[in-house]
Amino acid sequence: MIFDPATDKPQDECGVFGLYSPAPEDLAWLTYLGLFALQHRGQEAAGMCVSDGDKFHVDKDLGLVTQVFDERRLDGLRLPNARVSIGHVRYSTTGSNLRFNAQPLTTRTNKGILGLAHNGNFVNAREVRSGMLMEGALFQTTNDSEVMLNLIARESHMDLVEATASAMKELKGGYACVLMSRTQLLGFRDPHGVRPLVIGQREGTGGAGGAWVLASEPCALYAVGARLIRDVQPGELVWFDRDGLHSLMVEPKRPTPCSFEWIYFARSDGALDGVDIHESRLRMGAQLARENPIEADIVVPVPDSGIGAAIGYARESGIPFDYGLYKNPYAGRTFIAPTQEARELKVKMKLSPTSAVRGRRVVLVDDSIVRGTTSRQIVNLLQDAGATEVHFRVSSPPITHPCFYGIDTAARKELVASTHSVEEIRQLIGADTLAFISERGLREAIGGSGLCGACFTGEYPAGTPLLNDVDKLALEV
Amino acid sequence: MIFDPATDKPQDECGVFGLYSPAPEDLAWLTYLGLFALQHRGQEAAGMCVSDGDKFHVDKDLGLVTQVFDERRLDGLRLPNARVSIGHVRYSTTGSNLRFNAQPLTTRTNKGILGLAHNGNFVNAREVRSGMLMEGALFQTTNDSEVMLNLIARESHMDLVEATASAMKELKGGYACVLMSRTQLLGFRDPHGVRPLVIGQREGTGGAGGAWVLASEPCALYAVGARLIRDVQPGELVWFDRDGLHSLMVEPKRPTPCSFEWIYFARSDGALDGVDIHESRLRMGAQLARENPIEADIVVPVPDSGIGAAIGYARESGIPFDYGLYKNPYAGRTFIAPTQEARELKVKMKLSPTSAVRGRRVVLVDDSIVRGTTSRQIVNLLQDAGATEVHFRVSSPPITHPCFYGIDTAARKELVASTHSVEEIRQLIGADTLAFISERGLREAIGGSGLCGACFTGEYPAGTPLLNDVDKLALEV
Amino acid sequence: MIFDPATDKPQDECGVFGLYSPAPEDLAWLTYLGLFALQHRGQEAAGMCVSDGDKFHVDKDLGLVTQVFDERRLDGLRLPNARVSIGHVRYSTTGSNLRFNAQPLTTRTNKGILGLAHNGNFVNAREVRSGMLMEGALFQTTNDSEVMLNLIARESHMDLVEATASAMKELKGGYACVLMSRTQLLGFRDPHGVRPLVIGQREGTGGAGGAWVLASEPCALYAVGARLIRDVQPGELVWFDRDGLHSLMVEPKRPTPCSFEWIYFARSDGALDGVDIHESRLRMGAQLARENPIEADIVVPVPDSGIGAAIGYARESGIPFDYGLYKNPYAGRTFIAPTQEARELKVKMKLSPTSAVRGRRVVLVDDSIVRGTTSRQIVNLLQDAGATEVHFRVSSPPITHPCFYGIDTAARKELVASTHSVEEIRQLIGADTLAFISERGLREAIGGSGLCGACFTGEYPAGTPLLNDVDKLALEV
Amino acid sequence: MIFDPATDKPQDECGVFGLYSPAPEDLAWLTYLGLFALQHRGQEAAGMCVSDGDKFHVDKDLGLVTQVFDERRLDGLRLPNARVSIGHVRYSTTGSNLRFNAQPLTTRTNKGILGLAHNGNFVNAREVRSGMLMEGALFQTTNDSEVMLNLIARESHMDLVEATASAMKELKGGYACVLMSRTQLLGFRDPHGVRPLVIGQREGTGGAGGAWVLASEPCALYAVGARLIRDVQPGELVWFDRDGLHSLMVEPKRPTPCSFEWIYFARSDGALDGVDIHESRLRMGAQLARENPIEADIVVPVPDSGIGAAIGYARESGIPFDYGLYKNPYAGRTFIAPTQEARELKVKMKLSPTSAVRGRRVVLVDDSIVRGTTSRQIVNLLQDAGATEVHFRVSSPPITHPCFYGIDTAARKELVASTHSVEEIRQLIGADTLAFISERGLREAIGGSGLCGACFTGEYPAGTPLLNDVDKLALEV
Repeated sequence: MIFDPATDKPQDECGVFGLYSPAPEDLAWLTYLGLFALQHRGQEAAGMCVSDGDKFHVDKDLGLVTQVFDERRLDGLRLPNARVSIGHVRYSTTGSNLRFNAQPLTTRTNKGILGLAHNGNFVNAREVRSGMLMEGALFQTTNDSEVMLNLIARESHMDLVEATASAMKELKGGYACVLMSRTQLLGFRDPHGVRPLVIGQREGTGGAGGAWVLASEPCALYAVGARLIRDVQPGELVWFDRDGLHSLMVEPKRPTPCSFEWIYFARSDGALDGVDIHESRLRMGAQLARENPIEADIVVPVPDSGIGAAIGYARESGIPFDYGLYKNPYAGRTFIAPTQEARELKVKMKLSPTSAVRGRRVVLVDDSIVRGTTSRQIVNLLQDAGATEVHFRVSSPPITHPCFYGIDTAARKELVASTHSVEEIRQLIGADTLAFISERGLREAIGGSGLCGACFTGEYPAGTPLLNDVDKLALEV
Repeated sequence: MIFDPATDKPQDECGVFGLYSPAPEDLAWLTYLGLFALQHRGQEAAGMCVSDGDKFHVDKDLGLVTQVFDERRLDGLRLPNARVSIGHVRYSTTGSNLRFNAQPLTTRTNKGILGLAHNGNFVNAREVRSGMLMEGALFQTTNDSEVMLNLIARESHMDLVEATASAMKELKGGYACVLMSRTQLLGFRDPHGVRPLVIGQREGTGGAGGAWVLASEPCALYAVGARLIRDVQPGELVWFDRDGLHSLMVEPKRPTPCSFEWIYFARSDGALDGVDIHESRLRMGAQLARENPIEADIVVPVPDSGIGAAIGYARESGIPFDYGLYKNPYAGRTFIAPTQEARELKVKMKLSPTSAVRGRRVVLVDDSIVRGTTSRQIVNLLQDAGATEVHFRVSSPPITHPCFYGIDTAARKELVASTHSVEEIRQLIGADTLAFISERGLREAIGGSGLCGACFTGEYPAGTPLLNDVDKLALEV
Repeated sequence: MIFDPATDKPQDECGVFGLYSPAPEDLAWLTYLGLFALQHRGQEAAGMCVSDGDKFHVDKDLGLVTQVFDERRLDGLRLPNARVSIGHVRYSTTGSNLRFNAQPLTTRTNKGILGLAHNGNFVNAREVRSGMLMEGALFQTTNDSEVMLNLIARESHMDLVEATASAMKELKGGYACVLMSRTQLLGFRDPHGVRPLVIGQREGTGGAGGAWVLASEPCALYAVGARLIRDVQPGELVWFDRDGLHSLMVEPKRPTPCSFEWIYFARSDGALDGVDIHESRLRMGAQLARENPIEADIVVPVPDSGIGAAIGYARESGIPFDYGLYKNPYAGRTFIAPTQEARELKVKMKLSPTSAVRGRRVVLVDDSIVRGTTSRQIVNLLQDAGATEVHFRVSSPPITHPCFYGIDTAARKELVASTHSVEEIRQLIGADTLAFISERGLREAIGGSGLCGACFTGEYPAGTPLLNDVDKLALEV
Repeated sequence: MIFDPATDKPQDECGVFGLYSPAPEDLAWLTYLGLFALQHRGQEAAGMCVSDGDKFHVDKDLGLVTQVFDERRLDGLRLPNARVSIGHVRYSTTGSNLRFNAQPLTTRTNKGILGLAHNGNFVNAREVRSGMLMEGALFQTTNDSEVMLNLIARESHMDLVEATASAMKELKGGYACVLMSRTQLLGFRDPHGVRPLVIGQREGTGGAGGAWVLASEPCALYAVGARLIRDVQPGELVWFDRDGLHSLMVEPKRPTPCSFEWIYFARSDGALDGVDIHESRLRMGAQLARENPIEADIVVPVPDSGIGAAIGYARESGIPFDYGLYKNPYAGRTFIAPTQEARELKVKMKLSPTSAVRGRRVVLVDDSIVRGTTSRQIVNLLQDAGATEVHFRVSSPPITHPCFYGIDTAARKELVASTHSVEEIRQLIGADTLAFISERGLREAIGGSGLCGACFTGEYPAGTPLLNDVDKLALEV
């Protein structure tokens, strides 16, 4: 996981988006709207490609969607007869080649020019890459998408759909991808459905069916005026062309979607795999209250991600909900931090206690604790503001293991729960009591048929990387 | 009032900040922190001056605090022995000279070099300016601060404090100002205290007293580690030098602070004139519930400004509070809006209904309605998402008159409540019921000794501009 | 004088430009063209104002004309019915307020809104400013234009032309100014005509007379399709309105235009005060050859400013002209210079010897020597490239005194010729022989009725500043 | 050829630069200096890679060297123990992927990470690329370097030097390349030596040999303090490692270096393939005078590229050389050109006649005529300025055929000399007489063993593209 010092939250790596329109549409503009709705999934780079069946335009850069695509650059992507487009937002990893690693990745192959954007991670990408290097392949980026594209290009005797299905079988891990040629839009999800991908459709006009949409979350469908059709199934490959939606179940396995989508990542205005995000958070809060009741005066969320669980907790416990922490809406902006105190300052500049906590026993509800540093500061803020007791409640179980499915891995030793007991963490953060939701309680609150909880349990449904096999010399940047 | 199409809220014009430190401090950095905390009071320009008793540096530009002051520009303001500084954030009016109208305004006078930043408006500035023009004065900006500085400079026989007091007597209206020379920090508030200004002090070190702070709101004191000492009194002039805090009551009149500070402008993590912001909003919501009860399933705030009143409403009514509208945290960013539908799109990109409203009777709580266009769209969003009833509750009375005290005036005809009855507005916005808090209820909820409610009543405690006297030819830009 | 380390040349401070058109014209665009032609007179800031009789737009910033005025900013200045405009390029002095000191300066006065841009310097500006401060005036910049504008505004009983004439009488020094109101363009030149200003007119269309133009040099007239009408006379005030060109001889004295306009500043494609620039440089070179003959193989100019004199030298001496120094056309760009060797590096990156000098006795012709550091490096370059002898010839006399008329003053001790004999300078720069043109020879080469040679002689025709009278505390930035 | 509307000159596509240092050096800084000296070979993109044997940093972007590499970005490339670096400047072709086509191109291969930059063109790149696509290769750019890198990577059994030699044999055309791994610098030139590449070495320190340098022209050697060792030979592959310089003659053929390097491209302060640039231009001018004598008063160059030939013409003919055209040194800057008259305006803003031409019969010397539009305008300028006759002399033969060796091809029909006789061109440009140097005269003036004159003769020594074989669908962007 990548840590933002001011949030100490796990960070999703990416959001993907795609459009196929039977009739000409302003796809650059629609993709801009879709990416804007997915901005919370990746703040460091944005990009898109658009094709009209002939021209194939791409633009991408470091920055927010609204920073990368000013009017001039968006105009440069507008094609009067655009039919296919994909887009991507990325929470970038560190490295010297950031700019060149932005997605979508575009390339010319024996199947024509292709654009690919992915969310997630291929756990065996290094091994596959290493083998292809030995066969004479080039890798211009350290982006996993390039491995997928090489696999697709290698099957020169297959058509694009066949070659993509073949590549899906070769790559392991948790991922959701959108892929476009000049005339087709494809989308696919790993066999376990770890990363989300949904299908939508816009209203048609003039007898024609409306444009098809793929997106990491339903909010991006709504942003372009589409309704949710269904989720792409685990292991399913879908594609769109003049004949509409096609589907191939390439390699379906037991579904284990990432539980953190419901805990924290996904926007609360949608549902994934049939489970409403907001309602599941209310249930997590209620479950927390049942599992870990306490006597207190108010329930306060860490805004904004703790709000749903805090309301659920308040309702179940009967303790009044209140707004005890003001969140500065400008806190996400780049902030000069000249000294060692930068991290603490960022929390203080972001969150500020209101009078609600003064003289009160506070139940503080947050969605997760990664390293615990931020939690300690928030507890301190409340205590300094006169809270008489602070009872910390967390709507996820302790995070003890790294993620290998697209939530970039932090060293395990940085995860406070991997080396400390709950009581030790309580002492570290200075709360009067501390409780996490149980893993079983979380599964009940989310419901559904299965969940990936690898970061709580260390059981990785979609495999782990074989780090020792890697040809390090050839692969490092 | 200036309207932001995506909020349709009244817009405060400015935030001011000032520091006087008996010992050398990194005042550029502290001013940056203070302005960052006041960012919500003005998003279009930021500026500051810093002096060490000898050098006098100024920098300002269009943009957010974090955009104007990157590390290089902040470094350019750092003086090793800095003792005095002021800062400003501005919600800029339209006009061709935006860049040159940014504050603080600096000028050389017979009292040495001065810097001035103000929040608010001088209602007789045009008349005063016109008279001075006839006497041979120059005006390089259309900024009211320049009129104040000319008045101060004109009294060449007085010292800075006397000249400032004299200028306060000449200018009418609602304002709060910070003023600095190389060695002094001054602050003053209009006779009625329409605009806010608070005094704080940092912890001293090494026997010395800590730095003195002036700010529009307490949050900016906390941001620099200062505690609230007290509010500057209506009509009071305070100044700081080596001997600490000095005060002169220049022209105190009946206090009538702006009620919109409690309704909407001020951050919920502080108190103004002794009245806590968050608590007053809870009381407004409770008052609304008492005045306008309704049967419903959930109470939903328009985030973020309606949260406090919604919690108050929910508690008083017993109807559960829920999060029915997701707010995109990136919605404040510059957003390309290529078509006529831009305004509607901005609302849709900003607010999105959650499943909480589906099949429910919703009490929707917002702080104000200006033109009503945004309200109509929010009601539509909820109805489209399956809300069976929408009962709109507003924690301010109908706005029927323009403001002349620093909340820039919209044409009166644009204020929907100046030309429509409550029932007509209800029909316009499509709600099932609509109710505003009563003016008396608002005054009770806020409490305190007096309030300016000119925009509800048309009674202007601090006077109105005499538009006909203005020498228009000489004054227009 | 301001020294550019890579040229070691005296630096002109500014170029001015103005337009009055009886019929609507795209004056923003024409002013852009005019300023582009004057770019060599000032590279650090550019600005312009445009009026259509009602609106009055201004924009200015640090940077070259083409950097400040991109299409968006130029469009912002375009008025469909524009009639009056002025523009300015500036070689900026150091200081913390650079951005705010850019010209034109605009201000509202009892004569309406005015814009002023000047080239040159008022030697008694500090005294006048000091007096006005005591009377209650404000000074927002350290720009001399503001003093002139205050003097004009002070005469509230006079019209603009009378007030300007009155201000001309009060301010001493060497200057050329353009001034505009919404409906008039004014231009004026100091009593001695130290700084240049020319009048041109465009071809009229449809019976109307063509637009009138004022500019520092004729090249800017040609750039907008105007022909040269005449020079503004020393001490003359001209103005343009619906009735055409008007003139008032305010205070004409003995003409002494700046000799450095012919030596170095002015572009070679024009004439000033009736004397052609290119031809005068040929004559300077010929004069140098007559005064200081030498036996050599080739005559080499320091490009580009030494070309004219080198051709003249070659013709008079019969020694072949050749291109011995290549000049990198990108050398004017901002160049990172990380070490102490920066200055030397800049010369080396700019100038590079060709094979023409190998094994040759070289006469090297340059227009001036200020500190001598660059001259030494150029001599070294030639010697390293195999020149057997280097005979340095300079087409200006030794610079021994600072300039007070708009060529910003360096400390006198930095002028190598003020503290060293010609023989000492020769040793410093390492040339085999060194000779400067004589002052009399220069005057003969330029011709005309009189010349300012204060920097060679210390005789200042237009007075010197009274530095001791200045109220330093009140005036410093 | 790419046409710059304000010059109408053939445009070189690129400059390359490389360094191998036995001891740690600040290679990022030295590469910056080298690229700055080569800026005239490509103004639209710049880039470099640096390695210390372990890390491998790359940065590149659109813009001049000084625009791309500000201090921050240059610092990002600084490695304390840097040993190898390459750099590139590019005159970019049009296309939607400009940013991604900038060089050096970097990629991970079975030979480790590689960086490649090239000047010139592979005439069979499309065929090779097409074949590799069919074998499953990806092409992310439309850059020829990627084809070269694929060829190198394909030979997985060979080491880097062997694989590069093998790739040289496969690719046809005119090119000069620099290639680096983490520990080696390679350079190679096509079999005919069409594009230039020189070897230099810096002074060693402390017993160690100095850094080795590769560059398109000697000026870049001098810029980093290196002396010229020799030219890379046609068909030669050189490489540098701890043991110094190694060489392999891969495929030497009859040398035919591009004649336009001497006519126009190369800086006049160096020599290529043993022939001094400046001297050859003097000889071209003398040859022109012998071949096409005329009676006239002055010889005037089109600055700066016609200067050398004009001096040669003047000496041979005895007609005085003079500066009849002033060149605005800011003319290379981006210039807003809002109307159809843009092209003409650019010439007028760039060149301006001096008084030297008034009443004179002028021999005007330029290096080439491509489309003739600019030539016509220059002739007009001189005539308008009073030249009584204009005799146009061109130091290259008529350009009748496109170039396939790195000077990007214009459509043949745009070359005025391919469709018009000399007399017709004379009429088009309005000169009194017009003469080009003969092809034989040019060869004599340059000397050396052979020259590529394909653009004059249509005889292409290094082959031509087989356009019909191209798989267009798969290859277009």
